[in-house]
Amino acid sequence: MAAAPVWSVDPRTGKQREQVAVEATAQEVDQAVRAAHAARGALADRTVRSAFLRTAADLLEGAKDQLVEAADAETALGPVRLTGELARTCYQLRAFAGIVDEGAYLGIVIDHPDDTATPPVPDLRRYKVPLGVVAVYSASNFPFAFSVPGGDTASALAAGCPVVVKAHPDHPALSELVAAVLRRAAAQHGIPEGVVGLVHGFEAGVELVKHPLIAAAGFTGSVRGGRALFDAAAARPVPIPFHGELGSLNPVVVTEAAAAERAEQIGTGLAGSMTLGVGQFCVKPGLVLAPSGTEGDRLVKSLTEAVSNVDAGVLLDHRMRDNFVAGVRERAELPDVESPVTPGSGGEHTVAPGFLTVPAAKLAAEGEHDVLLEECFGPVTVVARYEDEAEVTAVLSRLPGNLTATVHLSTEEAAGQGNGAEILAELTPLAGRVLVNGWPTGVAVAPAQHHGGPYPATTSTSTSVGATAIERWLRPVTYQTTPEALLPPELRDDNPLGLPRRFNGRMEI
Amino acid sequence: MAAAPVWSVDPRTGKQREQVAVEATAQEVDQAVRAAHAARGALADRTVRSAFLRTAADLLEGAKDQLVEAADAETALGPVRLTGELARTCYQLRAFAGIVDEGAYLGIVIDHPDDTATPPVPDLRRYKVPLGVVAVYSASNFPFAFSVPGGDTASALAAGCPVVVKAHPDHPALSELVAAVLRRAAAQHGIPEGVVGLVHGFEAGVELVKHPLIAAAGFTGSVRGGRALFDAAAARPVPIPFHGELGSLNPVVVTEAAAAERAEQIGTGLAGSMTLGVGQFCVKPGLVLAPSGTEGDRLVKSLTEAVSNVDAGVLLDHRMRDNFVAGVRERAELPDVESPVTPGSGGEHTVAPGFLTVPAAKLAAEGEHDVLLEECFGPVTVVARYEDEAEVTAVLSRLPGNLTATVHLSTEEAAGQGNGAEILAELTPLAGRVLVNGWPTGVAVAPAQHHGGPYPATTSTSTSVGATAIERWLRPVTYQTTPEALLPPELRDDNPLGLPRRFNGRMEI
Repeated sequence: MAAAPVWSVDPRTGKQREQVAVEATAQEVDQAVRAAHAARGALADRTVRSAFLRTAADLLEGAKDQLVEAADAETALGPVRLTGELARTCYQLRAFAGIVDEGAYLGIVIDHPDDTATPPVPDLRRYKVPLGVVAVYSASNFPFAFSVPGGDTASALAAGCPVVVKAHPDHPALSELVAAVLRRAAAQHGIPEGVVGLVHGFEAGVELVKHPLIAAAGFTGSVRGGRALFDAAAARPVPIPFHGELGSLNPVVVTEAAAAERAEQIGTGLAGSMTLGVGQFCVKPGLVLAPSGTEGDRLVKSLTEAVSNVDAGVLLDHRMRDNFVAGVRERAELPDVESPVTPGSGGEHTVAPGFLTVPAAKLAAEGEHDVLLEECFGPVTVVARYEDEAEVTAVLSRLPGNLTATVHLSTEEAAGQGNGAEILAELTPLAGRVLVNGWPTGVAVAPAQHHGGPYPATTSTSTSVGATAIERWLRPVTYQTTPEALLPPELRDDNPLGLPRRFNGRMEI
Repeated sequence: MAAAPVWSVDPRTGKQREQVAVEATAQEVDQAVRAAHAARGALADRTVRSAFLRTAADLLEGAKDQLVEAADAETALGPVRLTGELARTCYQLRAFAGIVDEGAYLGIVIDHPDDTATPPVPDLRRYKVPLGVVAVYSASNFPFAFSVPGGDTASALAAGCPVVVKAHPDHPALSELVAAVLRRAAAQHGIPEGVVGLVHGFEAGVELVKHPLIAAAGFTGSVRGGRALFDAAAARPVPIPFHGELGSLNPVVVTEAAAAERAEQIGTGLAGSMTLGVGQFCVKPGLVLAPSGTEGDRLVKSLTEAVSNVDAGVLLDHRMRDNFVAGVRERAELPDVESPVTPGSGGEHTVAPGFLTVPAAKLAAEGEHDVLLEECFGPVTVVARYEDEAEVTAVLSRLPGNLTATVHLSTEEAAGQGNGAEILAELTPLAGRVLVNGWPTGVAVAPAQHHGGPYPATTSTSTSVGATAIERWLRPVTYQTTPEALLPPELRDDNPLGLPRRFNGRMEI
């Protein structure tokens, strides 16, 4: 059987641009994993790793024009967005280099013997070691930041884990280009090029997660695809951690007082957030609980005006376009659902943004409207109009896990007068990031970031953005009564590397 | 259908002592989980939690005589061992109270806005919140320390998670007694008694891990039972973290030089470790790589003498006794396996300790001897005699994951002369705790402890002993642009609770 070709496709026309590769066979997946596994030793030195990450950022920036052009040709995300995304990606690579240098992520704990403990404590020294080769499943919607050079790759390499990336079929040519840049960066530091493997093809992705030398996986994508890979990871003879970001509705609550204070500002802000990047963000606000009555009407009016002014756009591929058109039609045809701005087909290759409204009461109990509580990828949101706070609580209690949950409060409520704290307490169990008076789109790369949430937002309790993303690829090891001469330098009493640690119970920084 | 009775059995006679309870129905499991869930709020205050844990320790100590007697009647572990185990359990409860008070486990990170970042960073504040109700599966072999009041329960309560414990059928009466003590402690702090649920029965355990309100599970037991529950946890509509400690061979390498230096001391030490508690420890050394030739012969001779002097003992139940007798017979009958001290039946209700020897070459490649690389619960170990270092490497490369891996080195090797570092590098990928010149039995409760290891030692990268065991029951939440008035006190700039944190990138302690 001839190997299946992998085509680069122009989403603006739906036409094939060029054949990039062929789908990897099981044997080719095996070769990539073994090459990555063989590169582990070259990543063992932290100073080499951080230098590698910085060189990768430098080389990506150096190839910026070529990369942005290649990305735009396959994704239609536009040069402005893609230039920003590449800058974010390089920032992230450098941030992880800094994290590696600092070494707090190693979680060093040293306990000297203590005969007064029950049972007595011998000399114990703990830190974290890399898990092994990590499988990275690229996202469609972030060809840089959540793909070949993205957060999963950056954090895995920072942890000392080589990666084999499953390229997303929406940007195979860019994936090859970027992988070549990362390999060039590796070569500059004496690291074998196999440290960043790349495979194409659905079946290759399934083979990858089953490979015995794969020690963990990172995934960003759909609930269906992610759950299938999660299940495969769990069903292995030796199960592995599967850190998948699958899907999120990202609910927003607008209080009556907030709407009264600034309905127009909230409506306009919502329009901007839900249509940003043609609605192709995992943190797009997909459900907005807004009050019924006059204040909510003002919000809907301003949302209507703002969304009406947003042009139709090109989605990442035509399958997504078909799914979007079918998804909004299914939702719009439900009883009691209205479309102040009708979302759907915007032309042969584009989609038009829009939004739906529904009485919140329709979502408060199981029924045909439940599809409105499922993510619909693309520029659409659902505004559920509530009569009272009990309806808000009822709808929130029915939501699956989310990456984000947002509340818009009035100035007085934000100052602690009102039930803002109660609403935050209701939103916290629903999400990994809770926002007040903001919009969830735009995920900062920072130590305090958490980009994850209860299932299906994430398949684990981890984050895929921010400093702690590195924790996913490590496991602790404790050395007991091990002579100084044999200890890794990270665990020696004299702390030759100057690392932060907990020493006999006390933090040292 | 009548509910199945739950009997307390005397392992010294195999006779039923009393009927303790009946196996829980699905409806009773549901009631226990809902009662635990309803108790969450009462655990929200950290000061209440730590006081509760300390009271629990006090009350357990106060009931020491009764509890040790009850435990001995069902487990035959003896009052000395059980008194020590109860002391360890109380120490652990107080250690977690201290961890809650300190608050470092909250992982607080605060980032003020930074417009120079790419993309800009808004105000972000992250800490960890409890996951919800935790299912705890008790171990047979630690009726206190890994059962109702053990490390899983202590760390879950410390994290703010109520528990429902599945009692182990080897000590149902003790489980009821201890659960009552914990509930009495809860009541003293205004916490509903449902905060510690208890259910009996195999089917109840399966129902428990599937219950929608169960947010995570901790397990200590067999590979078969643990894997079945792990699979059930992963197959849920909403999968949950399953932290299982399943099985471990705990390999020990004795170098030629170490044997030459102190073969007798090592042989005697090994005898003590492998027969401790009638060999019923998850960290029992189950495979020892010892040199062939004269020095290794000395080790085997001293092991023979020491093990011959150990009395037969009572295992935790008669099923284990049958499995032990069958397991050692299967192993002893293999070609080239010898039994310097024959393990097996020691009488109607006891087993006799012993050990087997085999040429290491027989374990270096797949074959009929592979059963020797599987854990055999009880007082037996396998001494594999190696000809050279290549054989050691070959056998180690075939081992599954372990809780511990140990090497005995000579004084010179421990001082860095020789290949001690290379051996440590070979052992580190195999285990979560690596020991030099010690024995793996005896697991200290300390910040630097790690009691876990690659599968099947553990189903996750977590530990079930030591300070970081609390991390299993938490998930991070980040608050974005949230006014001070609405933030939990843990995340306020002025740090009213005096908690350690990372503040604008710098650690504050």
